[in-house]
Amino acid sequence: MRNVILDCDPGHDDAVSIIIAASKKSDLNILGITTVAGNVSVDKNTINALKVAELLKLQVPVVEGSSRPLVKQSEIAPEIHGDTGMDGPELPEPTKVVEEGHAVDFIIEQVKKSKEKVTLVPTGPLTNVALALIKAPEIKENIDEIVLMGGGTFGNWTPAAEFNIYVDAEAARVVFESGIPLTMFGLDVTHQVIATPDIVERVGKIDNDIAQFVKELLIFFGQAYKDHFGFNGGPIHDACTTMYLMKPELFEFQHLNVSIETKGEFSYGMTVVDKLNTTGLKANTNFAWNVDQEAFWQVFEDVLESFGEE
Amino acid sequence: MRNVILDCDPGHDDAVSIIIAASKKSDLNILGITTVAGNVSVDKNTINALKVAELLKLQVPVVEGSSRPLVKQSEIAPEIHGDTGMDGPELPEPTKVVEEGHAVDFIIEQVKKSKEKVTLVPTGPLTNVALALIKAPEIKENIDEIVLMGGGTFGNWTPAAEFNIYVDAEAARVVFESGIPLTMFGLDVTHQVIATPDIVERVGKIDNDIAQFVKELLIFFGQAYKDHFGFNGGPIHDACTTMYLMKPELFEFQHLNVSIETKGEFSYGMTVVDKLNTTGLKANTNFAWNVDQEAFWQVFEDVLESFGEE
Amino acid sequence: MRNVILDCDPGHDDAVSIIIAASKKSDLNILGITTVAGNVSVDKNTINALKVAELLKLQVPVVEGSSRPLVKQSEIAPEIHGDTGMDGPELPEPTKVVEEGHAVDFIIEQVKKSKEKVTLVPTGPLTNVALALIKAPEIKENIDEIVLMGGGTFGNWTPAAEFNIYVDAEAARVVFESGIPLTMFGLDVTHQVIATPDIVERVGKIDNDIAQFVKELLIFFGQAYKDHFGFNGGPIHDACTTMYLMKPELFEFQHLNVSIETKGEFSYGMTVVDKLNTTGLKANTNFAWNVDQEAFWQVFEDVLESFGEE
Amino acid sequence: MRNVILDCDPGHDDAVSIIIAASKKSDLNILGITTVAGNVSVDKNTINALKVAELLKLQVPVVEGSSRPLVKQSEIAPEIHGDTGMDGPELPEPTKVVEEGHAVDFIIEQVKKSKEKVTLVPTGPLTNVALALIKAPEIKENIDEIVLMGGGTFGNWTPAAEFNIYVDAEAARVVFESGIPLTMFGLDVTHQVIATPDIVERVGKIDNDIAQFVKELLIFFGQAYKDHFGFNGGPIHDACTTMYLMKPELFEFQHLNVSIETKGEFSYGMTVVDKLNTTGLKANTNFAWNVDQEAFWQVFEDVLESFGEE
Repeated sequence: MRNVILDCDPGHDDAVSIIIAASKKSDLNILGITTVAGNVSVDKNTINALKVAELLKLQVPVVEGSSRPLVKQSEIAPEIHGDTGMDGPELPEPTKVVEEGHAVDFIIEQVKKSKEKVTLVPTGPLTNVALALIKAPEIKENIDEIVLMGGGTFGNWTPAAEFNIYVDAEAARVVFESGIPLTMFGLDVTHQVIATPDIVERVGKIDNDIAQFVKELLIFFGQAYKDHFGFNGGPIHDACTTMYLMKPELFEFQHLNVSIETKGEFSYGMTVVDKLNTTGLKANTNFAWNVDQEAFWQVFEDVLESFGEE
Repeated sequence: MRNVILDCDPGHDDAVSIIIAASKKSDLNILGITTVAGNVSVDKNTINALKVAELLKLQVPVVEGSSRPLVKQSEIAPEIHGDTGMDGPELPEPTKVVEEGHAVDFIIEQVKKSKEKVTLVPTGPLTNVALALIKAPEIKENIDEIVLMGGGTFGNWTPAAEFNIYVDAEAARVVFESGIPLTMFGLDVTHQVIATPDIVERVGKIDNDIAQFVKELLIFFGQAYKDHFGFNGGPIHDACTTMYLMKPELFEFQHLNVSIETKGEFSYGMTVVDKLNTTGLKANTNFAWNVDQEAFWQVFEDVLESFGEE
Repeated sequence: MRNVILDCDPGHDDAVSIIIAASKKSDLNILGITTVAGNVSVDKNTINALKVAELLKLQVPVVEGSSRPLVKQSEIAPEIHGDTGMDGPELPEPTKVVEEGHAVDFIIEQVKKSKEKVTLVPTGPLTNVALALIKAPEIKENIDEIVLMGGGTFGNWTPAAEFNIYVDAEAARVVFESGIPLTMFGLDVTHQVIATPDIVERVGKIDNDIAQFVKELLIFFGQAYKDHFGFNGGPIHDACTTMYLMKPELFEFQHLNVSIETKGEFSYGMTVVDKLNTTGLKANTNFAWNVDQEAFWQVFEDVLESFGEE
Repeated sequence: MRNVILDCDPGHDDAVSIIIAASKKSDLNILGITTVAGNVSVDKNTINALKVAELLKLQVPVVEGSSRPLVKQSEIAPEIHGDTGMDGPELPEPTKVVEEGHAVDFIIEQVKKSKEKVTLVPTGPLTNVALALIKAPEIKENIDEIVLMGGGTFGNWTPAAEFNIYVDAEAARVVFESGIPLTMFGLDVTHQVIATPDIVERVGKIDNDIAQFVKELLIFFGQAYKDHFGFNGGPIHDACTTMYLMKPELFEFQHLNVSIETKGEFSYGMTVVDKLNTTGLKANTNFAWNVDQEAFWQVFEDVLESFGEE
């Protein structure tokens, strides 16, 4: 069993990612869920994380993290995820409470005390992970991989930048220059896992409360993507990270260099992907180019069905 | 008949572009050929332009232009085009001589004195065109379109930048901010017109000296692209411009904003293509996304065959 | 009595600054000394801080902080302060031990629990202070002033940047954009307090071990400045901060805007001082332009003499 | 006699500079006056140059140059020089007419055909000079020195940038990287030659029409500097260049590296002056730090008096 910390800003696709990780199919040992400002403010993300954990009866700490990026001003995206950050399905107010302390310290402590190496799974801006690496660089030794959603060869928040990286490009730079093995799911691959109406229908036919919750998430999220980007459904970006941890063979990768643009006038927050190795810079990232879509959705269905089986 | 000035750094694909323009199929009135530093130094490019013009018996002025970019240091690419800038086919030393004067002044004068509006067709770095617009901004009124090869949503010289734009990004900025209608053929579309071995074979079967010259160009160029980028042939980038002038319906376009990155650390020379209109900036470019490949090569064959018909 | 936290990278002039703060003349309540990577690595700075505290019999916590800047790579300056970071006087290995925990958390906790507002006095790179503000933005409410040494209208590490700011310009940006009242001692004023040979002689005549320690610091530091910059002595930069806390009337200030350049090619780490208010940006800094030199050294002597009086 | 081309945007201080050059005291051979957009639009500057030349009965060509900077958008400063660019004294409409052709070509031709090397004296934005160097790099061989007003270790248009350099920093970069010997009069020295009321009074006592014209220029300019910057008179910045050509011993210089910042967020257009040689970059500029003010104004009086002597 792999030790993971899910660092997120739920978020519809973050929620789906947590659900996958929490399923018995995933074989992951979730050390905790940490939250970060991103789609909406960090306190809203924390409530959403608590709600999802409670729905899943997940007995793991939820720890609140950074309320702002490292250097630049805050930026949020309520137009995609709604005011609560997870609009759509109605969940009761959580009885589960947030852990004491700060996510950055939780990450540092968990990594330090774990006998097995830990995998970090950030699906929001990289602020918490960067701060942990700045505050305690020695934890690098006990992190085997950072599996993240962010970036791509094109953007969705600006022409060059994806939202998670744009929000805190300086944090991304710290992470990408850390020397820790990175596996990156950018828009190139996450735009291949769009929950189109027929996918939503397949999910809707699964008869358990988790699947029904996911269905409602996908309906709201799909509508937002339709309105905002003209897509035929919402890409469940963040879910790629936990699907990969369960079934790495679903994806095709290239090991290459990714540098983070923090100076550009029109390209701030770009993940500069050196596909052709024109820079001569050392490869630092396992970059996901493609996914087997049919297999992906089949596994996804299996995961959701597993929640009705106990 | 449309008045065009071909501003280029021949260059294998520049040569092909000139050939297309010179064919009777194209219905273009070539006011002149101007040269610019790019793939190799400007004097070599001028010799190549003269050689191609002589081969084509083209009675138009060839005028030498800028030997360096506007602001940054020079950069050349002999690894792709060979030492002469047009390695491969052997052509005799040209008897045709270069025109007096500087390309920038030639462009200004031709545009000013033309009764019909003029189309500029730059297929190298944009130095000459930018300098003409800086020196004589009033010529904008008599330019109906700039049809250029450069840029794209990805790079070939750096991960983010295509060679022509990278060499003189400041010049590109001047052109893209000029307000003149732009039609842009970037790598997204030019990588769809790769002269694979079967295309080279089709060209080789055409029995006239121009086609045979093109065949030899394509063989050398294809080998360079194979060695350097692992491609199965050379993309005849620049030829898109003149093919478009002859048959615009071959291509699919989107009218959108392109901004030029001149400040970035890893993205200098990037054409930032606002596909999703996330910036709110005004559309300034007719951006070619796709080409009908089959039709393209059929027209290309027709053009080459036309040289044997007189 | 004012509550202060001395955040430093001692450092000859940091040591002098601590000594001033520790004197009974200063009327400061030192909550603790925190260290940061700067002139040399953070562990060396911590040892130096412990040595100085022990010499002063100062019963306050010494807490180690950040070993690297927020975003950029580390930079150290052994050519100015020697290999230990405080070469020159020989002090015994300290018996005093460093506090548990991280300087960033110490700063956050002290500020949160203090009944009176706290003054932060950073005399090294601003990494710790920035991290505290990022991790716990709410502490701003209980910080009355940040009194710092750094920057200026010219540089000493590059033509545009002073060492402390250059080492972590992103941290500086966070601090200068925080909205907390800032009092800034840059090179403009710190180069007015050069410990010339006659100053060193005056210090040498004061008969107590602290003054003798300071004399030795000044001799080594003066030689380094002579060798490296051609100065006639070492400017005791950092000491301006604690001298100001004791006697603000020694200095002349202008309230103006300072912005931190983090993008420039030749000006990274510059404190852009808007003396003439050409930008229209809001004043955020109390900028020290001048010091009454004669009065400064008189107070300095008084402070050193006070250590022999008990 | 030294061959000079005065490249300017008159401008009160430009006018004074031309007057000095035209005096028999200067021993300069003025090949021509070229104009550039700067304080106001280029056409207004041309009219002002013609007016001054006519007043001086100066038989040299006046040639109009660039109406816009190389890369960035235009910026003008009517608040300092008034709507005409030379408000204050009333001069008749000039009968002298502007030369055919463009300043850039005039500079290139004059330099190429001159038997003796030529000195360029730019006192406005460096657009014309940069364009000449880009279009005809070979002219470098026949330019012995560029004597310019611009930049400094502080700014007047932004905190970091002086107006002339800020208006076209890319042009400045081309000039400073050209390898041609540069002598630079920045704000450090030009703010030492303020035409205070007593200087204006001394000028007013000189009984010839040129001196009276200068007096009126100084009165208007002094008022603008008083209103805008709180100065006690107008600094006759540009006049330093021609005073230097006449009497170099008036000034104190340091040979050092100056780099031009074109990327900075708060420091665009800064001349980064490496006084302490911290960069290791090669010296490219003779930088004027100081002027002997008393001697300067004495020479200035002598020059103005000389106009009444024939």
